[in-house]
Amino acid sequence: MTDTTVAPDIRTRAAVWYGALDVRVEDVQVTPPGPGEVTIEVAYCGICGSDLHEYTDGPHAIPVGDPHPESGVAAPIVLGHEFCGTVAEVGDGVTAVVPGDRVAVEPHYRCGNCPRCLAGEYNICRHFGFAGLMGHGGLAEYATVPAYMLHRLPESVSLEQAAVFEPAAVALHAVRRARIRPGETVAVLGLGPIGLLVTQLAARHGAGCIVAVDRSSVRRELALRLGATETGADLADVVGGEGADVAFEAVGSEDTLRACLAATRRGGRVMFLGLTGTVRLDAFALVNNEQTITTSVGYRDAYPELVRLVAEEGMDLAGIVTSTISLEHVVRDGFEALLRGEEQVKVLVRPGEQRP
Amino acid sequence: MTDTTVAPDIRTRAAVWYGALDVRVEDVQVTPPGPGEVTIEVAYCGICGSDLHEYTDGPHAIPVGDPHPESGVAAPIVLGHEFCGTVAEVGDGVTAVVPGDRVAVEPHYRCGNCPRCLAGEYNICRHFGFAGLMGHGGLAEYATVPAYMLHRLPESVSLEQAAVFEPAAVALHAVRRARIRPGETVAVLGLGPIGLLVTQLAARHGAGCIVAVDRSSVRRELALRLGATETGADLADVVGGEGADVAFEAVGSEDTLRACLAATRRGGRVMFLGLTGTVRLDAFALVNNEQTITTSVGYRDAYPELVRLVAEEGMDLAGIVTSTISLEHVVRDGFEALLRGEEQVKVLVRPGEQRP
Repeated sequence: MTDTTVAPDIRTRAAVWYGALDVRVEDVQVTPPGPGEVTIEVAYCGICGSDLHEYTDGPHAIPVGDPHPESGVAAPIVLGHEFCGTVAEVGDGVTAVVPGDRVAVEPHYRCGNCPRCLAGEYNICRHFGFAGLMGHGGLAEYATVPAYMLHRLPESVSLEQAAVFEPAAVALHAVRRARIRPGETVAVLGLGPIGLLVTQLAARHGAGCIVAVDRSSVRRELALRLGATETGADLADVVGGEGADVAFEAVGSEDTLRACLAATRRGGRVMFLGLTGTVRLDAFALVNNEQTITTSVGYRDAYPELVRLVAEEGMDLAGIVTSTISLEHVVRDGFEALLRGEEQVKVLVRPGEQRP
Repeated sequence: MTDTTVAPDIRTRAAVWYGALDVRVEDVQVTPPGPGEVTIEVAYCGICGSDLHEYTDGPHAIPVGDPHPESGVAAPIVLGHEFCGTVAEVGDGVTAVVPGDRVAVEPHYRCGNCPRCLAGEYNICRHFGFAGLMGHGGLAEYATVPAYMLHRLPESVSLEQAAVFEPAAVALHAVRRARIRPGETVAVLGLGPIGLLVTQLAARHGAGCIVAVDRSSVRRELALRLGATETGADLADVVGGEGADVAFEAVGSEDTLRACLAATRRGGRVMFLGLTGTVRLDAFALVNNEQTITTSVGYRDAYPELVRLVAEEGMDLAGIVTSTISLEHVVRDGFEALLRGEEQVKVLVRPGEQRP
């Protein structure tokens, strides 16, 4: 049993990362909420591409040995950073939420004191990290997190919608940073959850034409329903004219980054979202074409806008959800199913199904 | 003799690129100005790093075989794109200048019809190119260029100042694109003419601290006179705190690009100006630090501001000029001297010295 507690009276089932290909669903003890902390009963927790990377060949972001400075923990770690639920218990000094409140969790840690936090750019805090990767997360029946991570949901926002707020926040932050101008041609390369949500949000942000590219015809179909105006299996085939004004790289590979640059016009920009290692670029072409490679990591100030989009604009973010599974079978029906093929897009885990 | 003319009655001495390490100062025939063209008597022509690249191991930008679509010529080509002088003769339809006018030449070709030209971004015209690289330039007593390249100089702007407008325009365009906010920390890596002019202009654009880096102590001294607040031989040694807000790469190499990224803060930006080939980058760090690599090539709408800076603000752009030489010895005293060491920064050629 993982030792994650100071009071051994609350137990929960949880998916715990011990190492690559070693994620165990087991009983853990829940840390009761300390000052400024909240324990929530998890309603849904999505599985992210980052979780898959940690599962297949981690650790990448998970601390092993030295604990993360904000979470104070190292592996074994409870996975899951895309979660929402209901407040079960609040620690001292917490006034923003009370037990029974429905909340979405914004899992970015922030120290509050570094230059980036002081500038409001907490997504690039010196102690960069996420609950569920650098600290214990939400693939569990209960999770204890800092109160600053919580956003109360109004009646009109369901937990099913809040379950995809985390990837939607990634997409929204990237779309905001890309500064799409009205009528611009946007290319999206890679139609995983992030690419699909970028497609959906770019349409709302004024893109004139959205070219969505993926090898999977299932995902291309979904992109068309979410706002893509054209789709294809190869970026070079579907971007015409002088090229896209902005291309989103939502895969994370050297090849797709280069494909994005090649399909983007002179003076255009590539929004690089995917995570990969070393990439080789043609710097001569990059400079002579006066292109910009900008990047986006995590999000800031995105959750309130997502609440508004769902509550007031009636936006349906949950269109990317392809299955909802139990926590007990998260490895088989979640990680392994996602790795097997392209039929699954967003898999949600519903830890409450564990309870009698 | 190079055949660059339709009327064989005007002759000029010129530095002509035939191939790598084969630049010949010889007699050529000047094309008389056709409709919309102007022949100028060149007062000064600077030698640029691009010229050195063409000299040592070109062709890079010089067309060989197929002529450039705007200039209509291919090698052998009269070098020199940093020039100014006096109007000698105007072609049909030219009304903006008359013989005797002193003019700076903005050597960007532009087709006027492509999407970028129509958007006012003529520096990234589909027919991207410069007189003096893709067409005949100003390392000559006389040069014929399109009238749209000319900017009339008021009395208060000397030809010595106009002689450095071209590199100053490169620096101004890059500084504008970097969008320096008041008080930001700016790092400049590489103190050739462009790095030095970036230093000088960044100070005017509100930078709070300018860290200028070069191996040459002569160039570092010059940077201090032009507005640098700190200098050093190694970027990592002189950028403290969380890193620079923006770093200008004005060298053109993989190592210096990576040094700029390493010395730039999370969320910061690298302005990549140097020209090089393939570069390898740590994409994982780039994305997780949410850094932006932006680029700048040539300039647009910069010359009028340079005229204003000199005429109205009394700015001295010619502080980077380290020697003025004759056209006859441009290879020995220009190209070879610049390649030998770091004592020369900007070498101007004065073709008029040829004349009796």
